Amino acid sequence: MTQINEHFLKLKAGYLFPEIARRVAAFCETRPQADVIRLGIGDVTEPLPTAVIEAIHTSVDEMKSRQTFRGYGPEQGYDFLRQAIAAHDYQARGIDISADEIFVSDGSKCDTGNILDMFGSKNVVAVTDPVYPVYVDTNVMAGRTGTSDADGRYAGLVYIPVTAENNFVPSLPDQRVDLIYLCYPNNPTGTVVSRETLQSWVDYARQNEAIILYDAAYEAYISDDAIAHSIYEIEGACNVAIEFRSFSKNAGFTGVRCAMTVVPKSLVGRAGDGSKHDLHSLWTRRQTTKFNSVSYIVQRAAAAIYTTRGQQQVRELVQYYLDNAQLLRDGLAAVDVTVYGGVHAPYVWLKTPGGLTSWDFFDTLLEKSHLVGTPGSGFGANGEGYFRLSAFNSRENIEQAVTRFQKLVA
Amino acid sequence: MTQINEHFLKLKAGYLFPEIARRVAAFCETRPQADVIRLGIGDVTEPLPTAVIEAIHTSVDEMKSRQTFRGYGPEQGYDFLRQAIAAHDYQARGIDISADEIFVSDGSKCDTGNILDMFGSKNVVAVTDPVYPVYVDTNVMAGRTGTSDADGRYAGLVYIPVTAENNFVPSLPDQRVDLIYLCYPNNPTGTVVSRETLQSWVDYARQNEAIILYDAAYEAYISDDAIAHSIYEIEGACNVAIEFRSFSKNAGFTGVRCAMTVVPKSLVGRAGDGSKHDLHSLWTRRQTTKFNSVSYIVQRAAAAIYTTRGQQQVRELVQYYLDNAQLLRDGLAAVDVTVYGGVHAPYVWLKTPGGLTSWDFFDTLLEKSHLVGTPGSGFGANGEGYFRLSAFNSRENIEQAVTRFQKLVA
Repeated sequence: MTQINEHFLKLKAGYLFPEIARRVAAFCETRPQADVIRLGIGDVTEPLPTAVIEAIHTSVDEMKSRQTFRGYGPEQGYDFLRQAIAAHDYQARGIDISADEIFVSDGSKCDTGNILDMFGSKNVVAVTDPVYPVYVDTNVMAGRTGTSDADGRYAGLVYIPVTAENNFVPSLPDQRVDLIYLCYPNNPTGTVVSRETLQSWVDYARQNEAIILYDAAYEAYISDDAIAHSIYEIEGACNVAIEFRSFSKNAGFTGVRCAMTVVPKSLVGRAGDGSKHDLHSLWTRRQTTKFNSVSYIVQRAAAAIYTTRGQQQVRELVQYYLDNAQLLRDGLAAVDVTVYGGVHAPYVWLKTPGGLTSWDFFDTLLEKSHLVGTPGSGFGANGEGYFRLSAFNSRENIEQAVTRFQKLVA
Repeated sequence: MTQINEHFLKLKAGYLFPEIARRVAAFCETRPQADVIRLGIGDVTEPLPTAVIEAIHTSVDEMKSRQTFRGYGPEQGYDFLRQAIAAHDYQARGIDISADEIFVSDGSKCDTGNILDMFGSKNVVAVTDPVYPVYVDTNVMAGRTGTSDADGRYAGLVYIPVTAENNFVPSLPDQRVDLIYLCYPNNPTGTVVSRETLQSWVDYARQNEAIILYDAAYEAYISDDAIAHSIYEIEGACNVAIEFRSFSKNAGFTGVRCAMTVVPKSLVGRAGDGSKHDLHSLWTRRQTTKFNSVSYIVQRAAAAIYTTRGQQQVRELVQYYLDNAQLLRDGLAAVDVTVYGGVHAPYVWLKTPGGLTSWDFFDTLLEKSHLVGTPGSGFGANGEGYFRLSAFNSRENIEQAVTRFQKLVA
């Protein structure tokens, strides 16, 4: 008799974004003429950089002849890409991360879940609240939580509130935790934290032998070098942090699929007998056994991002979305909506006007203004009364969205 | 204190193929002039079909403009691909599998491991012996086994011998099992089984509420329709089997990365309280939470395989490797080496000449003939004394390999 993984049954009704998609589809069915503008899911809209397009054309032509054909590549990714990442994203910033500490992957969503494979089931996990739901749901599925309460909080998880009341700064936990998810620039709030705050978390992790799972998927949106681009800019982080990065939001790879995970060789975890084991070896074993890396063509596409032209094109793309975020911020503030984030991130986080719940505001905005956003409560109990708007869209749509939003609020 | 997943520590020294790569690299370092021919890892060598190349060029150009740009796709894969798979691979054979039962993935290696996420830890797992090591190692990592003995057998796993003594036909287990891995055409032995044998396993699974994990990655190599291409050709299989397929070995996608997993809606597993839960919903939840599907470009490439031209080109590619397999079989038999498989599969499975152990023969073949194969014992205790040669290579290399092999044996 085949037994299912019963932890799946603890999951709440649906992953947030499929639920949004379901409601939008239902709306569009009844109102097929409505010009719906989607600022919900954080999906890019602008074309791929031409450097990337050209790299794909070139590399696929290599697959035409036996001499240049590529079959299985290294499970950790090709050296040409790992070297480019190490040089540009780390060594150029004075960070001592080498190419063989970088694991190419098909997405940060995948890897922030997969990384749990190498950790024991009894680790106590901390997440901010609100938080990217994947961190929570993958831990539920892996059995690191109990059931959820009426507010959607799972027993056994440690929730660290990040709200307007504490300026979105996560404070250290009251109890011991073993795995800590941090995401900066933050999804969903669009906020950033100071180096001092990050240092306090790194120090906590060192003192408690905890591991920080640092999601830097939105790093490219940082427009002030006072803010850390990488957790490894923080002293001691190489001993306690795994960093996730993605090409989705800088180079528009949400449909191309390429990301990376950094597992420094200096990281260790303990077995039940107290013995230390290095996580780099465990992750290598996991990846060589359960993964076959990313398409060669896609890895060439990612490497093109690190050329001079590629870098310039990515900067322009990011600036385009940052300008969108600024338009959203300014447009909402003009009608007295309280906004956060959106300066070093493509997300604007706002207080729902009129004190509506997040989902009520979602339905109102869809029904009356044909705009799709993301209900803050979908990201956690402390997201209730907030709402996320994504700056990923065309300039025209962002301007139109601001106009409609202003009309609704007025 | 972060705890590691201690089950990883039970794994034997290294996944088979990295170990082969290590030995080959060491040999090449001492003998840099040696013209090594690799018939070890089952990696294709011939160019991609032109229909595939063209589909990639066309689809990447769609990413150049906002109007045709694609961001996140459905986690289960695009409908255009799922429909093509359902129509050609299933419905055309009279098999009632619909598009929404097909999940596009980045590889069968990945998915045969990932699928375990939705099953409980107490299921008893059966594998053939020898077997593709990923089935075993992923279960070890997930905690479904004890430690291994001197022969590499893990406590708690049920091993079903498939050797020359039983004509490579797996017999039903003596004890109850819940999850059963079957792979036909078989990796590593290159053998196939009759419909009657498959029916006996399906009947067993129905009687015992077990699930069969059926790996049909080499289905395209079947050259006689008396042999089942899909487990779903067997009566009742839709209620008990998950099928894995891949574009790696038919269309040469080992470096492109695309595969599929079929989870029929009629499959169920049980929770501890005896309640039934459908696996299609669980797998949908797993994939939407932990996966973001495959590159749009790659999915277009895979869909091109189902065009008339694509089908013709894939048939030619498969025939090329099948002819290679025939050359290997005939060439080895001519010097009285006992060979199996290689008729409906790209693998030839042979008895090591002179009664050498599998690894001793590996070292001898590498050292004296500069040929790389795969030691049968790497696939399980019952693979000892056997050796796998892959037909994935150029005709010239296969002919050269036969000549060298014959010289060594003579």
